[in-house]
Amino acid sequence: MTTQQLVQQIKTKKSFLCIGLDVDLTKIPKHLLELEDPIFEFNKAIIDATHDLCVSYKPNTAFYEAYGLKGWQSLEKTINYINENYPEIFTIADAKRGDIGNTSSMYAKAFLEDLNFDSVTVAPYMGKDSVEPFLAFENKHTILLALTSNEGAFDFQTNIVDGEELFKKVIKTSKTWKNSQNLMYVVGATKAEYFAEIRKIVPDSFLLVPGVGAQGGSLHDVCPYGLNNSIGLLINSSRGIIYASNGENFAKKARDEAFKIQQDLEEILRMNY
Amino acid sequence: MTTQQLVQQIKTKKSFLCIGLDVDLTKIPKHLLELEDPIFEFNKAIIDATHDLCVSYKPNTAFYEAYGLKGWQSLEKTINYINENYPEIFTIADAKRGDIGNTSSMYAKAFLEDLNFDSVTVAPYMGKDSVEPFLAFENKHTILLALTSNEGAFDFQTNIVDGEELFKKVIKTSKTWKNSQNLMYVVGATKAEYFAEIRKIVPDSFLLVPGVGAQGGSLHDVCPYGLNNSIGLLINSSRGIIYASNGENFAKKARDEAFKIQQDLEEILRMNY
Repeated sequence: MTTQQLVQQIKTKKSFLCIGLDVDLTKIPKHLLELEDPIFEFNKAIIDATHDLCVSYKPNTAFYEAYGLKGWQSLEKTINYINENYPEIFTIADAKRGDIGNTSSMYAKAFLEDLNFDSVTVAPYMGKDSVEPFLAFENKHTILLALTSNEGAFDFQTNIVDGEELFKKVIKTSKTWKNSQNLMYVVGATKAEYFAEIRKIVPDSFLLVPGVGAQGGSLHDVCPYGLNNSIGLLINSSRGIIYASNGENFAKKARDEAFKIQQDLEEILRMNY
Repeated sequence: MTTQQLVQQIKTKKSFLCIGLDVDLTKIPKHLLELEDPIFEFNKAIIDATHDLCVSYKPNTAFYEAYGLKGWQSLEKTINYINENYPEIFTIADAKRGDIGNTSSMYAKAFLEDLNFDSVTVAPYMGKDSVEPFLAFENKHTILLALTSNEGAFDFQTNIVDGEELFKKVIKTSKTWKNSQNLMYVVGATKAEYFAEIRKIVPDSFLLVPGVGAQGGSLHDVCPYGLNNSIGLLINSSRGIIYASNGENFAKKARDEAFKIQQDLEEILRMNY
């Protein structure tokens, strides 16, 4: 998917919501556990109920790997279901991978080619040759961890390097890499005070913003500084939407939560564009 | 496995070699491709031929994920085969994971509990709460990326933070985390000049050393500065051993290469202990 297609989808749906599909068998409705593939059935119900309110789904691979072979199968079925039924959706493999060059190429192939996600999240610690293999795929996107939403972000990401925070050095350096036009960045909603500075470095890039909801970040702190000419934000919510209820009506309740956020986002779009 | 058991194994086998099981279907002997699970059959033959010369096997998860469900199955069969037949071996899931706390817990469960690896490699960029969930497992080990073997290591890892290189800050900070006694560190053989300084910070920790062989690192540059009172090094070689031949005799040739390194390591142990 091209960035232009993503922007068009945002304008059509009046939403820049991304829903995180972080499925934990201990949290989903009990009646699903009797089915052959509870994870996929849960995802399918959530997707069918929310696809018109969001522009992106983001399964975090940890939640699938935790269930071994069956989990990996549920991940495959989920991405295939989205690609077949809702091809307009921007899909994100939240995998946070990164390794030496020849190994990163294997990860890139796995997520961007075989599973056919539109994008994958990547960790920057190993530098240029660990990220460029992901960037080589045309019309695919590499979402680099810059400033994450967790408390541990302050351990290293905000350390001062050459007079600026490490996460800024990461973003600036990544702009010099081959095919850097395929980069997006993870910036946590819990770090709203940094959005204005980040926008100076990457005025045109999309930012994937986790941390709204359960982690405490606020939409209204982020958007005034994060929005750009092409919207440029994907606001992620996971637990707040998908675990809105664990009753039989869980999909309807998830839709209700997604609708509330979509309405907020529509209002923000109306006021800014 | 305890660290003491690992050290005992090293003394018994007179080796501190780790063999990387980075299986690429385009590089393995053609006759294996006709079998139902070529990746597992390749690993099984390599393991049977080399288990007395090495103390550790390290499958890199990228090479398995690249083959989707079948690859994940091959990984499961490989770790189970090692655990059942050679329980003395120290197993490493080279996964380079790391995410916010509740998500890292899922990865830790997947690799240390369900797949039952002795250890897993973890990336430090997201800080304390992304690593501590891995450290919580008793007699399991978390191998933190410190100074990696690739060229991109110079992009951020050697940046100066508070008067010292970022990788040193990472190692020092990690020592303050809960259950830090379960930490080991990745330090590339291609960065031999840093081993003496790293040993000052973590005199007692094991270091996993990739980059010998195909990547150009030298055993004789690393060992004089990396060895400690309990040996404290695992020297990894992947491609140089497992792809020594792609003929019918590939396992024998892999053994020959592993034997050469084991002989070097035995000589190093004899001279130092």
